[in-house]
Amino acid sequence: MNVLIVYAHPEPKSFNGAMKDVAIETLTAAGHGVVVSDLYAMGFNPVAGRDDMTSELTDSEFFSLPKEQTAAYDAGTLASDITAEMEKLKRADLVIFQFPVWWFGMPAVLKGWADRVFARGFAYMPGRKYDTGMFKGKLAMVAATTGTSADTYAPDGIDGDILTVLWPIHNGLCRYSGFDVLPPFVAYMPGRVGEDGRKAYLEAYRKRLGELETTPPLFFHPKDDYGPNERLKPGVLARSGVQRNV
Amino acid sequence: MNVLIVYAHPEPKSFNGAMKDVAIETLTAAGHGVVVSDLYAMGFNPVAGRDDMTSELTDSEFFSLPKEQTAAYDAGTLASDITAEMEKLKRADLVIFQFPVWWFGMPAVLKGWADRVFARGFAYMPGRKYDTGMFKGKLAMVAATTGTSADTYAPDGIDGDILTVLWPIHNGLCRYSGFDVLPPFVAYMPGRVGEDGRKAYLEAYRKRLGELETTPPLFFHPKDDYGPNERLKPGVLARSGVQRNV
Repeated sequence: MNVLIVYAHPEPKSFNGAMKDVAIETLTAAGHGVVVSDLYAMGFNPVAGRDDMTSELTDSEFFSLPKEQTAAYDAGTLASDITAEMEKLKRADLVIFQFPVWWFGMPAVLKGWADRVFARGFAYMPGRKYDTGMFKGKLAMVAATTGTSADTYAPDGIDGDILTVLWPIHNGLCRYSGFDVLPPFVAYMPGRVGEDGRKAYLEAYRKRLGELETTPPLFFHPKDDYGPNERLKPGVLARSGVQRNV
Repeated sequence: MNVLIVYAHPEPKSFNGAMKDVAIETLTAAGHGVVVSDLYAMGFNPVAGRDDMTSELTDSEFFSLPKEQTAAYDAGTLASDITAEMEKLKRADLVIFQFPVWWFGMPAVLKGWADRVFARGFAYMPGRKYDTGMFKGKLAMVAATTGTSADTYAPDGIDGDILTVLWPIHNGLCRYSGFDVLPPFVAYMPGRVGEDGRKAYLEAYRKRLGELETTPPLFFHPKDDYGPNERLKPGVLARSGVQRNV
């Protein structure tokens, strides 16, 4: 497989950096191709806006990000830092998002990578979402660290189920754009588990990376489970672990 | 009240811009003080990192964001764009986050405002979270627009319950740091509802802003509902609408 690791941490010697390095080493040894976007090292600009378009806007009076993204993508006039990432994404069979959970989500530099690179026209368009998403056939996986314990991220934990906290990324970013989503690999509080604990996390991650092709993806309801209003049809039991029947 | 509106949209004439303007007008007319952080207009830098600290790092070999944030906050050496926002936040009784939902979350410029301004030492520290959070006594509210319908954000909708999608912001960013969180005001697909629909949204928002002091905040389980492992005690029924008993 071709693997793209999108990595967001300001410290190369961090545990996130170690996880990224383990992934490069393990995946390369297994014969996969690995490309890394090290967003901090690249100085990636995460703010989507007018400067994403290098030619004249289609509407100079009212800036609509999705409309201008679509026009610029079609015309091949998106900024080069965006198109470079798009090329990596096109070639990837698996995308790994490697980041520390900051305020229950991606660091801004990574969120903005999504805002800018998952542009309309490239990552979604009318009629192309979820089961018919643009990146159908590709895999995505979150590899993350947290500052609080696994208990806090239990379904009855104070921070909420980790799959709920990651839902905007799993369902929103990845599944929406067509990816199958592998279960996340989460290292809880790596700063608090000691050297042995960190080694154990890296071993577990190495093992997980060796099982990519046999790990079942997370369940998301297929298109047919939804009615025309995009709500679960009567009689379909919500079983994503996040949605609920009403 | 003193209200801080943190606003993130690249187009001043957008519906988000209109909501921000309605809030300024309505709140000012009601006698509240209003301050706006217009992140796009400010060119706010959302990437947390070394440059957030203006003096020597406490550890030049290993950059830990939370440690350096704490030290720099205590020493008064955080970058001036951060401390300016902190001052606004200190004075605010209510913070309104005004943004378009992009990829199920905040635009990166706003996420990074949180990453940088909600610094350790200022927004959280050991023993100070949730019920004992640093911003106890303050209110927060999300005011947002979406690109898909209200049905898709129903509990059984394909995008997932809007309160689940916003959980990382409501519980993660706001409640974690001590805020009481008002129910979000969400304008679904304002681009698709016509001029009358948009007017109706703005009227409804104006009405909501007139009821700030009587609107009950969202429910979050109090500290006493959790055991020492920060999971709900046996017998406590999960009723945040997002957490689940296991």
